[in-house]
Amino acid sequence: MSLKYAVIGSGALGGFYGGKLAHSGKDVHFLFHSDYEFVLNNGLKVDSVNGDFHLTGINAYQSTVDMPKADVVLVCLKTTNNHLLKSLLSPILHSGTVIVLIQNGLGVEQDVASVFPQQPIVGGLAFICSNKIGDGHIAHLDYGKLNLGVFQGDIDPVVEQIKNDFTEAGVPAEVASNLMQARWQKLVWNIPYNGMTVVLNTTTDRLMSEASTRQLSYDLMLEVINGARACGVEVKESFADKMMELTDSMTPYAPSMKLDFDFKRPMEIEYIYSRPVKAAMEAGYAMKKVAMLESQLRFIQAGLSEI
Amino acid sequence: MSLKYAVIGSGALGGFYGGKLAHSGKDVHFLFHSDYEFVLNNGLKVDSVNGDFHLTGINAYQSTVDMPKADVVLVCLKTTNNHLLKSLLSPILHSGTVIVLIQNGLGVEQDVASVFPQQPIVGGLAFICSNKIGDGHIAHLDYGKLNLGVFQGDIDPVVEQIKNDFTEAGVPAEVASNLMQARWQKLVWNIPYNGMTVVLNTTTDRLMSEASTRQLSYDLMLEVINGARACGVEVKESFADKMMELTDSMTPYAPSMKLDFDFKRPMEIEYIYSRPVKAAMEAGYAMKKVAMLESQLRFIQAGLSEI
Repeated sequence: MSLKYAVIGSGALGGFYGGKLAHSGKDVHFLFHSDYEFVLNNGLKVDSVNGDFHLTGINAYQSTVDMPKADVVLVCLKTTNNHLLKSLLSPILHSGTVIVLIQNGLGVEQDVASVFPQQPIVGGLAFICSNKIGDGHIAHLDYGKLNLGVFQGDIDPVVEQIKNDFTEAGVPAEVASNLMQARWQKLVWNIPYNGMTVVLNTTTDRLMSEASTRQLSYDLMLEVINGARACGVEVKESFADKMMELTDSMTPYAPSMKLDFDFKRPMEIEYIYSRPVKAAMEAGYAMKKVAMLESQLRFIQAGLSEI
Repeated sequence: MSLKYAVIGSGALGGFYGGKLAHSGKDVHFLFHSDYEFVLNNGLKVDSVNGDFHLTGINAYQSTVDMPKADVVLVCLKTTNNHLLKSLLSPILHSGTVIVLIQNGLGVEQDVASVFPQQPIVGGLAFICSNKIGDGHIAHLDYGKLNLGVFQGDIDPVVEQIKNDFTEAGVPAEVASNLMQARWQKLVWNIPYNGMTVVLNTTTDRLMSEASTRQLSYDLMLEVINGARACGVEVKESFADKMMELTDSMTPYAPSMKLDFDFKRPMEIEYIYSRPVKAAMEAGYAMKKVAMLESQLRFIQAGLSEI
């Protein structure tokens, strides 16, 4: 049986992952927002380091009310839009529809599960560098691996099929045995670099070039690792060293939160900072520096910086 | 016996405190830097909330080599210039000259004592809002109290005389029984607001208006209080509440480090942040959030912010 996919949020992530699936012949239905008309007339263009492609005649929609019920919903919205998910997803769910949350941070699955308590839910972690560079136009610059992990539901065979669909589409995909571990591990990188590039208005390479912020990045990583451990999730300290090496090897990089800040979009403070801080605190560990970064970001988000 | 004063650094602090002493008839000799010629021709003008005054024919010098030996040297330089003190002060010291360091932070007395181990040394804390607004022109906007504390030397009577000279000159002055306590107490305010207004490019009132940074300011204060205690200096927790109230009652304020940052002058990171962090750490207490602020400031000082 082949799976029917719905892609909610066809931007940098949804445009790429959904586009790859559609390009490989899967049955994919895209929800577009501002560039619906453009895509209808011009299709979806993906400039990828692994080969460009251009999809025309795709299944594009302006509202989920008009979409068919899907077997798999790929939620590729920023978490700042998650309050919309109840009304957005309800029309396209059947009892077995798997909701895949390709989103950053901690706690997204829990929150969506409280809205859809009966629905199978999968967490998705995207290790990718991609941007939406224009209407119906995605640039895929580097990486691309998708890590999937079951949060709710007895759905291992379906998740295996989703993984295989991605693999066939040329997207390296894995099923994580421990979703929470995968989420915390991703936070080890996301927490220092997303917030610090915003607060200090800079890029990853500059943070790494100055001794004080290099050390602070590492300290923040260790706090996240200790936070994970407090929550019963094992992450090795050496993982921080691996992330330092990875960052050193990257080209100067503005993480997604820095782009959100630069383009005056809301930042994903809640799921990337507040939830991990709260989870660790409830487990008895204060991530003090992470909490400080959270406070600084909330101040900036409130528009109070710059006189 | 009347005291002969030398004022080293005749800016916002030295211009005001030295100016007040001279205005009341004390024997004061001022070292000027960039505005020496101007002051020689036009005198020193102080616009003060307590009454404006204009000093002409003052004892102005361009080099301490030309100055008479003083009984009291008021060091009113930014601590970022303290590496100059050995050569600046040596020509004007006799064996009993009291060096008064009217400076911010922790460790200035220790460092100067290592350069002048035989000299009486006094720490001075200025609770004042004043600015240099032009050549030979000081604006005194609010407050003004001077808190003096002996660091080195058996000089209680002289310090009492200095206090009286200031009092006669209309400057509220006190002798602190515990200099280190006075320094740590001042840090309880200085550490959160100096650094945070720089890192978040804002003013005190805005930091206080947003819940996240209001709490963070308070948390930073408590860390400083715990740092003080680790160093054997008692500061009550209620002192943090007092500082919160004080800040709430202030007009929107840019602390001295924010002005240094705005005017691209070096910031006093070493004595306001690094030394307290180090002192507390050596005493077994990690001021984690203060250390994080220090790291962020060092990054900014290195000129790495803003792409």
